[in-house]
Amino acid sequence: MKQWRVGILGATGTVGQRFIQLLEAHPWFTITALAASDRSEGKRYGDAVAWKLPTPLPARVAELTLGACRPPLDCDVIFSSLPGEMAGETEAAFAAAGYPVISNSSAHRMAADVPLLVPEINAEHARLIPVQQQRRDWTRGFLVTNPNCTTLALVLPLAALEQAFGVELAVVSTMQAISGAGYPGVASLDIVDNVIPYIAGEETKVETEPRKILGRLSGDQVEPAPLRLSAHCHRVAVTDGHLCAVSVKLRQSAPVEDVCAALVEFRGVPEARSLPSSPSRPIVLRSEPDRPQPRLDRDLERGMASIVGRVREDPLFDVKMTILGHNTVRGAAGATLLNAEFLAATGRLT
Amino acid sequence: MKQWRVGILGATGTVGQRFIQLLEAHPWFTITALAASDRSEGKRYGDAVAWKLPTPLPARVAELTLGACRPPLDCDVIFSSLPGEMAGETEAAFAAAGYPVISNSSAHRMAADVPLLVPEINAEHARLIPVQQQRRDWTRGFLVTNPNCTTLALVLPLAALEQAFGVELAVVSTMQAISGAGYPGVASLDIVDNVIPYIAGEETKVETEPRKILGRLSGDQVEPAPLRLSAHCHRVAVTDGHLCAVSVKLRQSAPVEDVCAALVEFRGVPEARSLPSSPSRPIVLRSEPDRPQPRLDRDLERGMASIVGRVREDPLFDVKMTILGHNTVRGAAGATLLNAEFLAATGRLT
Amino acid sequence: MKQWRVGILGATGTVGQRFIQLLEAHPWFTITALAASDRSEGKRYGDAVAWKLPTPLPARVAELTLGACRPPLDCDVIFSSLPGEMAGETEAAFAAAGYPVISNSSAHRMAADVPLLVPEINAEHARLIPVQQQRRDWTRGFLVTNPNCTTLALVLPLAALEQAFGVELAVVSTMQAISGAGYPGVASLDIVDNVIPYIAGEETKVETEPRKILGRLSGDQVEPAPLRLSAHCHRVAVTDGHLCAVSVKLRQSAPVEDVCAALVEFRGVPEARSLPSSPSRPIVLRSEPDRPQPRLDRDLERGMASIVGRVREDPLFDVKMTILGHNTVRGAAGATLLNAEFLAATGRLT
Amino acid sequence: MKQWRVGILGATGTVGQRFIQLLEAHPWFTITALAASDRSEGKRYGDAVAWKLPTPLPARVAELTLGACRPPLDCDVIFSSLPGEMAGETEAAFAAAGYPVISNSSAHRMAADVPLLVPEINAEHARLIPVQQQRRDWTRGFLVTNPNCTTLALVLPLAALEQAFGVELAVVSTMQAISGAGYPGVASLDIVDNVIPYIAGEETKVETEPRKILGRLSGDQVEPAPLRLSAHCHRVAVTDGHLCAVSVKLRQSAPVEDVCAALVEFRGVPEARSLPSSPSRPIVLRSEPDRPQPRLDRDLERGMASIVGRVREDPLFDVKMTILGHNTVRGAAGATLLNAEFLAATGRLT
Repeated sequence: MKQWRVGILGATGTVGQRFIQLLEAHPWFTITALAASDRSEGKRYGDAVAWKLPTPLPARVAELTLGACRPPLDCDVIFSSLPGEMAGETEAAFAAAGYPVISNSSAHRMAADVPLLVPEINAEHARLIPVQQQRRDWTRGFLVTNPNCTTLALVLPLAALEQAFGVELAVVSTMQAISGAGYPGVASLDIVDNVIPYIAGEETKVETEPRKILGRLSGDQVEPAPLRLSAHCHRVAVTDGHLCAVSVKLRQSAPVEDVCAALVEFRGVPEARSLPSSPSRPIVLRSEPDRPQPRLDRDLERGMASIVGRVREDPLFDVKMTILGHNTVRGAAGATLLNAEFLAATGRLT
Repeated sequence: MKQWRVGILGATGTVGQRFIQLLEAHPWFTITALAASDRSEGKRYGDAVAWKLPTPLPARVAELTLGACRPPLDCDVIFSSLPGEMAGETEAAFAAAGYPVISNSSAHRMAADVPLLVPEINAEHARLIPVQQQRRDWTRGFLVTNPNCTTLALVLPLAALEQAFGVELAVVSTMQAISGAGYPGVASLDIVDNVIPYIAGEETKVETEPRKILGRLSGDQVEPAPLRLSAHCHRVAVTDGHLCAVSVKLRQSAPVEDVCAALVEFRGVPEARSLPSSPSRPIVLRSEPDRPQPRLDRDLERGMASIVGRVREDPLFDVKMTILGHNTVRGAAGATLLNAEFLAATGRLT
Repeated sequence: MKQWRVGILGATGTVGQRFIQLLEAHPWFTITALAASDRSEGKRYGDAVAWKLPTPLPARVAELTLGACRPPLDCDVIFSSLPGEMAGETEAAFAAAGYPVISNSSAHRMAADVPLLVPEINAEHARLIPVQQQRRDWTRGFLVTNPNCTTLALVLPLAALEQAFGVELAVVSTMQAISGAGYPGVASLDIVDNVIPYIAGEETKVETEPRKILGRLSGDQVEPAPLRLSAHCHRVAVTDGHLCAVSVKLRQSAPVEDVCAALVEFRGVPEARSLPSSPSRPIVLRSEPDRPQPRLDRDLERGMASIVGRVREDPLFDVKMTILGHNTVRGAAGATLLNAEFLAATGRLT
Repeated sequence: MKQWRVGILGATGTVGQRFIQLLEAHPWFTITALAASDRSEGKRYGDAVAWKLPTPLPARVAELTLGACRPPLDCDVIFSSLPGEMAGETEAAFAAAGYPVISNSSAHRMAADVPLLVPEINAEHARLIPVQQQRRDWTRGFLVTNPNCTTLALVLPLAALEQAFGVELAVVSTMQAISGAGYPGVASLDIVDNVIPYIAGEETKVETEPRKILGRLSGDQVEPAPLRLSAHCHRVAVTDGHLCAVSVKLRQSAPVEDVCAALVEFRGVPEARSLPSSPSRPIVLRSEPDRPQPRLDRDLERGMASIVGRVREDPLFDVKMTILGHNTVRGAAGATLLNAEFLAATGRLT
């Protein structure tokens, strides 16, 4: 298989560290460039980073020197997890300079010509790439994004239900891990013996991104799916793993056992099934009455699946359930990586 | 004011300890009898209890000897927080023996002739007491219950909305404190760095109790209110304070500001307003974007109010909001105490 | 009693907020001026502060306008909890301008002419004030400091033992609350499911400050006490309350019961006993095998005492024990306030 | 390599689950029998166990039927993690019946003829086995134990120092994980926002077991090492990983750099170095100022090493340091497994 040299933007952050962890010993990708804020430019990565993962920082990566967040970088493809405010211009500059930019940032997610890609669900949205290049007059570079961490956990089961029965509406209440806020992120005084019932901007993302992801590519654009969502987002004292309580009204009513069957049988498009980071099952269904739980289930399928449990009748709608996703793996770095693998496998990374 | 001698059933438990804390220096009630499981009968209370409150165990109470959970007990009124499985028969035995029994247990809550009393909301339900006495052939004794801890936090705001606009449905997702499970209750391995998406029996209580509380007394029985509820209940690593994310569909749509006004103006029936344990406001409305929070807000109004915040439009229904209640104060011991005060003030404790 | 008008430096911080909480309804002191960093100068306090205490921000204080941290301020006495780096010059400037400055900051603690005052222990050190004024050519103003939060919890029991038996050495291992690091302070990702075995500068403070506090005033200077200390400092996931495991070698060996008697009988100098913020007992001795515990015991004596338990024989030295202190009350704002009360009561605040 | 069939006593407990996790895909050992309390005898393991590890319960093991805790069991060797009170007789019964019993329980640890084995340190103590068999008139069976979880974390670095300089005394303060108390173990109300300064029996174990482990085999018995210890044991809100603050007085003083060198160079006896579960380094030395930390470092070397950091001068003795061990891996199941591997590799499991 061809090899690609990867440059990481936002390399010192929580998601940047996950990129490095997930790319250690990757069969296709090798990290050759790291970039972060101006403050750390020119430093040895091992000196600049406050490494917070329980697996050791790979020695080879520790020795890399941090570059600036502007082209050129010595790599074939860019993985970006820049903070929203600087992602917009920076990522566009790299794409304009000819780099494929696979991004976890929110800046370009909702742009009409940028795929908000979840390969199991909307592989066909990758066909926006040439549209985007033509519109923006870019020759080799392009932008592909993945959704918000909570959206990703939700949208895999929602896709299974959308395909099987249609989804009319979903009410979502989240209990999100502190790692989702980066580092230093949430102050400990705000979360020990506490819950914070607010995450800036999060509810809007959860209410809008699934509509684009589940939408249909029609000509040069994505027709949003008609499902409607309401989200309540909370931060809880969990290190990793976003848990979501979801009530769903289907377009075509279905009993709990059919809903379970649709979840279990969901596989996604064939091209997304056997990538190096693909989960063996995109949705894991648990039957215990008290699962999924973040600490016990977040690492199933190497953190790359949505774990669903407590599927039961809803007294108001059709079904309710609990959904768990690993927010910094499948909800962030792992999503970007899976997108990159999908683009590589389908010949879009040249 | 007349004085009453109180006997506490379940005195060593989490709620029993709160009774003792709240009754220290109470103007009307004095603890004269304590009872708990057979195992601790005959022991000095101070030796039998694993006191877990941050205020000291009152010295006089520590010296009392634990009696058995059967009549007679040396008291005028019984406060009960027995576990569900033993509450049913024991409380009925005390009522049959002539004691007013004010209970926090779930055993009799849904019985047709037992008031599920929240004085600010359904003071008129106390008129079930003579109905109950006649049906059961009891002369002086009777049973009055208060709702489940989560129900109580919810039902005060729901009552305000029901009165102002009518409530058609509510979707509720809770994040409940560990003290709600008693002691030892939740194992620490289940809650550190974790959320448990299941509390046995809780969702059914939250979905049914509000309908009775908000129901109308019609002749000899309560006509349940027509609102419909769906609940998702979770346990989180918080010591005290149940937080609820709630989406509400009103019968008569109303903008956010009118909903806020209805919440702020809710006062409850006059007889419930100036009892010793009455909150000055049954509902406290917060305007900050990230409140209420359990650690910061649970003790407002001495833990006797529902704290509401984040009132905002719901994309699917009318409004969504966050509600917090102190689960062992207003949600348990404080609710029982307020019921007792209400019954005393209205001449029902003789 | 005379009234004093208080100005607070560092008013928006964790300790500044405690000052405001403790001074609400104080019989002698009224807050008339607040100052914080340049960034918040000129703002209404209620708008500038991220109030993190569970009791409400007093309405009158919320309306005060934040001033700059330089003289003049409209007050008779300054309470300071500035961060170390800016406390040195700022506090000296206020003292030079004629203000008594009672400080919780570390900047001046170890200066030879500045009392490191714990009134129960070393009231006589207040006699350094005229020495200081003469040396520094200050007329009305002066500086008085209180110790580090951990030091204060330790030094009350150490003083009791020093007076009774002499202390030769003490080995101390601390488990310190996150509130000790201020806000935002400790990142939640560093403390959930974790312990941090390091607090910058803390071990040195704990090893040196007690020697000054327990020292003798000899002529114009304090002769440090000869005890020697070794400290290990850790941060744990506790909101308030520093817990310390202490092994002590006495100069004159004593059995456990005599050590307990010395702790219980310790009262401190008479002038410090009946101030508005004095604990009824500076040391509370608990006899249960598993106490003190931060959550259950930190608020005893309104947070103004050291709570001691598990006094037992040490296989290497004489005794070992567990000591708990409320780090933001007696360990910070409460210590400053008690010092101010002591200075007022002894005629040093004019 | 020869294969052994393993029977596990206490299979449903926290350590029993770790045995199962660690033995999945083990090159030498296969689980063929499981036993637990009478209550679960006859049940399918997958139904009886409340599996609390984040890796899935192996399907083959889930199907095994739980036997009773008495001989015979269908296996060649017994791994035991029975609770102390029932371990004594049960383990002796299996040994008497001819089974090698490798135990994590405390019952027989201090018996004069039972090795308290840490292969890197005291491999020679295995020579007590024939002494034990002769004394007790056992033919094939025998007992070998491993230390308490905290002892094991401590004793590896202490052994390195004992060998290099001699250790005169050590003062130890621990912050221990909740998993050390089993399941349900520590109540969540006791540990959220709290520290418990007491673990029944623990301090005595930590003060005595290292003396036996570091002792010399002299004829038929172990001569305890002369070092003296004082321990303070605390429970903190950490899932896995015991952290210890240790001050050490050496017999022959040494500067910090020599102490670090002794720790880094410690390798243990050759026979213990390349077993399947051997860590590549029994002691990992970290140089960062704030490490080791439980969440970040407990899984280094697959949880089989002691992680040491903050080695620095002690103002009272020679050096102080922070030590971390994974309490349910190297501190329990992993220690038993390493002992079994050592006994197998040295021909003692026939």
